[in-house]
Amino acid sequence: MNCIIASTSTIHGSNYLEYLKPKLIDFFKQKSKLVFIPFARPSGISHDEYTTKVKQALGDVFTEIKGLHEFKHPIEAITQAEAIFTGGGNTFLLVKELHQKGLMEPLANAIRKGTNYLGTSAGSNICGPNMKTTNDMPIVYPPSFETLGLLNFNINAHYLDPDPNSTHKGETRETRLKEFLTQNKQSVVGLREGAYLETKDQKITLKGNLSARIFEVDKLPYELQPEQTLNYL
Amino acid sequence: MNCIIASTSTIHGSNYLEYLKPKLIDFFKQKSKLVFIPFARPSGISHDEYTTKVKQALGDVFTEIKGLHEFKHPIEAITQAEAIFTGGGNTFLLVKELHQKGLMEPLANAIRKGTNYLGTSAGSNICGPNMKTTNDMPIVYPPSFETLGLLNFNINAHYLDPDPNSTHKGETRETRLKEFLTQNKQSVVGLREGAYLETKDQKITLKGNLSARIFEVDKLPYELQPEQTLNYL
Repeated sequence: MNCIIASTSTIHGSNYLEYLKPKLIDFFKQKSKLVFIPFARPSGISHDEYTTKVKQALGDVFTEIKGLHEFKHPIEAITQAEAIFTGGGNTFLLVKELHQKGLMEPLANAIRKGTNYLGTSAGSNICGPNMKTTNDMPIVYPPSFETLGLLNFNINAHYLDPDPNSTHKGETRETRLKEFLTQNKQSVVGLREGAYLETKDQKITLKGNLSARIFEVDKLPYELQPEQTLNYL
Repeated sequence: MNCIIASTSTIHGSNYLEYLKPKLIDFFKQKSKLVFIPFARPSGISHDEYTTKVKQALGDVFTEIKGLHEFKHPIEAITQAEAIFTGGGNTFLLVKELHQKGLMEPLANAIRKGTNYLGTSAGSNICGPNMKTTNDMPIVYPPSFETLGLLNFNINAHYLDPDPNSTHKGETRETRLKEFLTQNKQSVVGLREGAYLETKDQKITLKGNLSARIFEVDKLPYELQPEQTLNYL
């Protein structure tokens, strides 16, 4: 599998996909056409608007960028794609659309066969066995929480350390992930903004400048350092 | 309906239910037995542990406090209850249990018939038509997102204003609720910590010292002031 699984599309003080751009130019260098999956619709923007945003950011990397919603036969589009990018937004919306259009399995198969895949945020959350560690609001009811299962652990995108000065009594991210582990067996990789996983030759490597926080059943959470691999979670 | 629908059980610098205690003493003054619904299991604590916590906080208000999990016939327990309290924690866990045990409708009916009801956090989220505006992590898959439907609008508990100094790129609460409104018609009342709704004689009144933020389709969000009513949302 050839995947870049990123916590976020955008880091503070920088434009959409800007911090990843050098990496993406290299990652997609043999590819000329990109299929973009816009279903997560951040802030409710339309599929067209979202696709336009991606064209602006990656128009110089590909000769063609097309939103999956523009294809008459989306399953075929996925199966034949050279490169696929699933953008962030609302994971519930994304997963509902993928299931309802019968795209979850074709997408997983395409990526397993080697199609280059970029996911950011919601597009990264779906790489694990299920979407049960998303931070998003459940604004729609998907027919299932199961996702691509490319990884045998879950992703928590936009991972955020607890703020020791907070007076807010809502659960911290760490509390939420520990609650997840009372009900599920999958480990979770909390990816801070700017961090991403790269999969290549059966290896999964943490990239970027930040460590990731790993949550496993019956263990204290711990840090994974950049360039460390996590095959064996 | 006689309900107290609170954003949170606990405010900063104060013990469990402490800020609400004077109100609760008055609200429950004719009631001697409380049925507590512990299914939301905050931080994964057990039903017994959670019930013990409530006994410690409200033991002087009731002669008997019993967790719903202790009853052999929970539907009967709900139907015959004098007073019911649903505690906070994970809304997905709570809603899954209520549906699986066939309790959602009996609970709604009991409250509609006048049984005094206290909800905090997840226990408040379930008072609207659905749980699609919870902040919680979807750690389990409920058979439906539909909830009690006592109110014709949704609650967002622990409502949090956007932090203008944040460098984090995850969605703000306001962005999430606006995304909700792209997919749903229900209005949403964002209850800040310390605020609660009181229902009495067909009236719903905002209580506490803080205003609430109201989100409606095709309108800019606006503030509801304490002591204002919101029958007509």
